[in-house]
Amino acid sequence: MSSPVKVAVLGCGSVGSQVVRLLLEQSADLAARVGAPVELVGVAVRRLDSPREVEVPAGLLTTDAAGLVAREDVDVVVEVIGGIEPARSLILSALEHGASVVSANKALLAEDGATLFEAAEKAGRDLYYEAAVAGAIPILRPLRESLAGDRVTRVLGIVNGTTNFILDKMDTQGSGFAEALGEAQELGYAEADPTADVEGFDAAAKAAILASLAFHSRVTAADVHREGIAEVSAADVASAREMGCVVKLLAICELRPDPEDPTQEAVAARVHPAMIPRSHPLASVREAYNAVFVESDAAGQLMFYGPGAGGSPTASAVLGDLVTVARNRRAGTRGAGESAYADRPVLPMGLTRTRYHVAIDVDDRAGVLASVAQAFAEHGVSIQTVRQEGRDDDAQLVVVSHAATDAQLSATVDHLRGMEIVREVTSVMRVEGADE
Amino acid sequence: MSSPVKVAVLGCGSVGSQVVRLLLEQSADLAARVGAPVELVGVAVRRLDSPREVEVPAGLLTTDAAGLVAREDVDVVVEVIGGIEPARSLILSALEHGASVVSANKALLAEDGATLFEAAEKAGRDLYYEAAVAGAIPILRPLRESLAGDRVTRVLGIVNGTTNFILDKMDTQGSGFAEALGEAQELGYAEADPTADVEGFDAAAKAAILASLAFHSRVTAADVHREGIAEVSAADVASAREMGCVVKLLAICELRPDPEDPTQEAVAARVHPAMIPRSHPLASVREAYNAVFVESDAAGQLMFYGPGAGGSPTASAVLGDLVTVARNRRAGTRGAGESAYADRPVLPMGLTRTRYHVAIDVDDRAGVLASVAQAFAEHGVSIQTVRQEGRDDDAQLVVVSHAATDAQLSATVDHLRGMEIVREVTSVMRVEGADE
Repeated sequence: MSSPVKVAVLGCGSVGSQVVRLLLEQSADLAARVGAPVELVGVAVRRLDSPREVEVPAGLLTTDAAGLVAREDVDVVVEVIGGIEPARSLILSALEHGASVVSANKALLAEDGATLFEAAEKAGRDLYYEAAVAGAIPILRPLRESLAGDRVTRVLGIVNGTTNFILDKMDTQGSGFAEALGEAQELGYAEADPTADVEGFDAAAKAAILASLAFHSRVTAADVHREGIAEVSAADVASAREMGCVVKLLAICELRPDPEDPTQEAVAARVHPAMIPRSHPLASVREAYNAVFVESDAAGQLMFYGPGAGGSPTASAVLGDLVTVARNRRAGTRGAGESAYADRPVLPMGLTRTRYHVAIDVDDRAGVLASVAQAFAEHGVSIQTVRQEGRDDDAQLVVVSHAATDAQLSATVDHLRGMEIVREVTSVMRVEGADE
Repeated sequence: MSSPVKVAVLGCGSVGSQVVRLLLEQSADLAARVGAPVELVGVAVRRLDSPREVEVPAGLLTTDAAGLVAREDVDVVVEVIGGIEPARSLILSALEHGASVVSANKALLAEDGATLFEAAEKAGRDLYYEAAVAGAIPILRPLRESLAGDRVTRVLGIVNGTTNFILDKMDTQGSGFAEALGEAQELGYAEADPTADVEGFDAAAKAAILASLAFHSRVTAADVHREGIAEVSAADVASAREMGCVVKLLAICELRPDPEDPTQEAVAARVHPAMIPRSHPLASVREAYNAVFVESDAAGQLMFYGPGAGGSPTASAVLGDLVTVARNRRAGTRGAGESAYADRPVLPMGLTRTRYHVAIDVDDRAGVLASVAQAFAEHGVSIQTVRQEGRDDDAQLVVVSHAATDAQLSATVDHLRGMEIVREVTSVMRVEGADE
């Protein structure tokens, strides 16, 4: 048989330990699929004596990650450390020293993918990162390869398992946000510091990666409008339920006409909680699962569903990339590199078209509905439905708008807040997945 | 820019015409993604003057398919004729003459894929066929690449849109089979001769292709146990509904312990109508949509959903393959070829473990239930539930079994049919997607 493909793994946490386990347990199958043995030659860790989920063979553990990626005999470096540094420097060094790279690092790819892609291009090596988005779900490869002959117009997904778990508990158990977060933390679905998940940073990084691939343009995390779920209340979830909707944290990437040049198209990318109809396929995504909905001109609507996180599912995605990269090395070639030829501009959120659900506590007197409707009209926002509920001397209005620019809608809400008859705007949430 | 990649298309029916349309309309994007212009150099058709959905540029139409595939300047041949011959001879000739091939031909790949793969291997060319299974849904590439580092244990899918449309109408409108088939034919979802769809031949071909890729073994259509939906009655569908189930035509490919050598694994592949719980993700696949559920050791459960047929969705899958194949040619390489290293045996249906739902008209007298239960027990089949409904002097028993071999279950049903107290076995259907 051919000479082995030598693999170094950076990081041995929940994903890294499962990568190591699969490399050892599936070695016969991996060899058959690659056409050469796949040999684990080193695992870089912070401390040699930390407890681990897998027994790493003696002599393979090292704290010298920089030395490991620079080894001349390493063919593939698997980076599952996460974070910006030292991950970026290690990946760049690995590429410079001739290794191909498989990474699960969404934060780094979304912040500074361009630097990595350029280094891979220069080195003539592969950089694969399926595991960076939606865990085990094959979504990047379908976007970059299966749909390469189609024109993708929209990617709509639930790409963060922690927030989906929390929102699902709020929906099914009627819990408040804090209570559902506590349950997620107890069960290991949320970290002690849940900021990255709850505030939408994790989903925004994934949205940037998805938008870049779908629209052949460079989109970074900073280009993605981001709102988390910390402000979502039990009342919002109940209100969604009354409308036949459910609240989900969505990552939405769309191709839109460029308002500065309507012959061109621009990219809009955003992450925020939204109400979607219960009949929408994404509405039935429960617990910590992920799902990504893709719309394209020729294929129509596709959906990809599965576990979005976890050591073992993420390791499955890493190993799939590893087999491809190893095959490419054996064939003396590389896969498709970055595709950013379309170089589309990114629309600011204000220009993005959305729909709003607005709940307003108002004085219960004649003419209130007319005044509120007038406020919407003044900002060019058309109302789809209004529901009015009287309670003693005050009343609640629930307005759902037709699609308008986010700037128009946001100005409408500011206007409402300044009106004398409006006691409080109790809830503002976007509505997605229904007809405009 | 580089010299063009020259493409010949065989067939200009509903899929071929959409392939031609996309090649012409998306040429700028295709060139950017491939790194070279993609040039349509010929379209082989049966008659030059047939009406077509697309205007093929003058001079490109030819009735000489054999001459087209033998042209020295053709880089990629797209075969969307379907059927065994002349498709096979044309593909083999194309490979011999140095072209790579993209095919949507499930029947041919399921009957004689081995001949094609060997020819591609010998020629050092690519043979891609994403469009052969589940239309636009990227399922073959995820199986052959994304999950290449994982161990797939089960593929369960709705892979025929026509039969799903019929069963969906029977479920939602209470129609009988003939009526629902008529509606499908009127709407263009079923052909005038619906045999290939209704009798499960189409689904069985797709099951063979899925099983081959999932389990790295050669599985042909003849290896797949096949039952169609023509015998599914309105009563079956109603009975499923009472159980909280829905009837779907499923393609099921499983890895099972080999009974002849329990240290080894064998492949079981089958297509038949089955009841699945309404809570199962496949239960909500409506109309002519397709969905494929994949279970693997590390990734867990994944689902892929989308339009399973139609000219434009199928053309999307063809074009995705075309971009990959064209990139490979430009790089002087090829993608992964056939992976049949595991060479697992195929289990006969009798050894496959399934569950049965059996409805029996019996005499309404004492001891009937005991006798029926005894018949199940004699064949080693354990009963999960029995429901008894008395009507005048006869009664109906509905039995749902635990998992047993199909041979045991089938012998039980034969036994029941021979019993004096049994007036008629009115319905026999397998139950899938629930706990055993």
